[in-house]
Amino acid sequence: MIITVVGLGVIGGSYVQAMHGLGYDVYGVDCNEETLALAKKQGYIKEGYVDGHDIIAKSDMTIICLYPSLVLDFIKNHTFKKGSIVTDVVGIKSYFLQEALSIIDKDVEYISGHPMAGREKKGYAYASKEVFYHANYIVIEHPQNDKTKIAYMCDFVSKLGFKSVKIMSPYAHDEIISFTSQLPHTIAVALMNSDDEKYETGKYIGDSFRDLTRIANINADLWAELFLNNRDYLLASMQRFEKEFDQLKLALINQDEQALKTMFEKSSQRREKLEK
Amino acid sequence: MIITVVGLGVIGGSYVQAMHGLGYDVYGVDCNEETLALAKKQGYIKEGYVDGHDIIAKSDMTIICLYPSLVLDFIKNHTFKKGSIVTDVVGIKSYFLQEALSIIDKDVEYISGHPMAGREKKGYAYASKEVFYHANYIVIEHPQNDKTKIAYMCDFVSKLGFKSVKIMSPYAHDEIISFTSQLPHTIAVALMNSDDEKYETGKYIGDSFRDLTRIANINADLWAELFLNNRDYLLASMQRFEKEFDQLKLALINQDEQALKTMFEKSSQRREKLEK
Repeated sequence: MIITVVGLGVIGGSYVQAMHGLGYDVYGVDCNEETLALAKKQGYIKEGYVDGHDIIAKSDMTIICLYPSLVLDFIKNHTFKKGSIVTDVVGIKSYFLQEALSIIDKDVEYISGHPMAGREKKGYAYASKEVFYHANYIVIEHPQNDKTKIAYMCDFVSKLGFKSVKIMSPYAHDEIISFTSQLPHTIAVALMNSDDEKYETGKYIGDSFRDLTRIANINADLWAELFLNNRDYLLASMQRFEKEFDQLKLALINQDEQALKTMFEKSSQRREKLEK
Repeated sequence: MIITVVGLGVIGGSYVQAMHGLGYDVYGVDCNEETLALAKKQGYIKEGYVDGHDIIAKSDMTIICLYPSLVLDFIKNHTFKKGSIVTDVVGIKSYFLQEALSIIDKDVEYISGHPMAGREKKGYAYASKEVFYHANYIVIEHPQNDKTKIAYMCDFVSKLGFKSVKIMSPYAHDEIISFTSQLPHTIAVALMNSDDEKYETGKYIGDSFRDLTRIANINADLWAELFLNNRDYLLASMQRFEKEFDQLKLALINQDEQALKTMFEKSSQRREKLEK
């Protein structure tokens, strides 16, 4: 089985490494020839291509690890093998899948996916199969999908080391992701930007501030695109957060110790059971 | 030089371990005899005491690693060696120091401190000297302090492995800590509690949600006390955060891509230079 990964960045690079030893014929497509040469030397890909037209036409699965708009360009400009699976790693789905399905050949099985794994650092140098361990994966199912191919996809990503694999509609995906991924990013950005810089902040932080602001270092183009194309769900999640934040503020203003403790106990219990 | 650590939890336990090999005579006081026996067996303390009156009266430095209200009880009920240094690890200072100074013997050098290191897990089992590496330490100076003793304290904590040691007034400490420590905790609690639990959230999270909610598992009694005794600074920090969060929301409502990108670029630059 021929599998081609397009874009050997931190996610694409992790894909080729996670497939190592599983018996697939893995190829890579990237604009950076050095990256391709390195991945080939390391034994993770059989061959690398800057122009992927020939290998894509022969691949049984194509995993496109590019930014959303570049995925659409790639789909538009390439012909995939009939009956092959094409997948992506795009962070929002409703809007994106509508676009993708409108341009891809009808005899290709397009199964959008979301590996909930990543690093702050970009590029192949930061790729590793460990990125996928203990991570969640969401397989997006749309009405045109073949159920057996969806099952195949779930099995495939499980083999790569993902801890949990769930099947969802694009709408459900975008709703939950607005809360679990996009809202944390808005919070981190706002927290970092609310520093009045009166003190030399970095000298007065502990791990809490480090952890809450790590993702404030954010790819501006990518995340503006993701946020704006999931605006309604994200705004609803932001409002839910604000309501809880206001309750905390109110308890403080009222010096209501019991109300504070009740909120802390609730958040503690929820956090403890989060990944059980 | 005799140094006694009171309370061998995660912080106190890390203190005795960090002092190992530095030439001090280290003793421990704790209500748990098993913890004392373990620390002695490991060679981190020369002896452990449940009743610390005798050893405290002989100690050149006493490091009290208890909750704020228990520190005050401890100070009230013990007699310290004349001229010795007594320090604590309490997370807020203005209110606390006023109380502490009103009850401690006048011939003792009380130097409040804040090791900005910690773990989610409690207890000696999670203590280790690595907790202090790359961590910040704040030495609190008040008008009655002897400058040479403050300098001694800075030198002492540097030897324990802290990356940065800064001297501050209790007021400045409480102001900056309301932003770098307390605000992140309010945010984490509000984020965790704003989950509408429509989906099985734990299956749809990545590291961003994990990182932003880790501290939502919070000691309710301790943090209610810390928040309420630093209410004005904390409310001001919360309001600054809300203002930034509102700006993000407004840019989303207005579909103002440029405004979003400008905020993302600002937060990215600030995060990158945070610990440089």
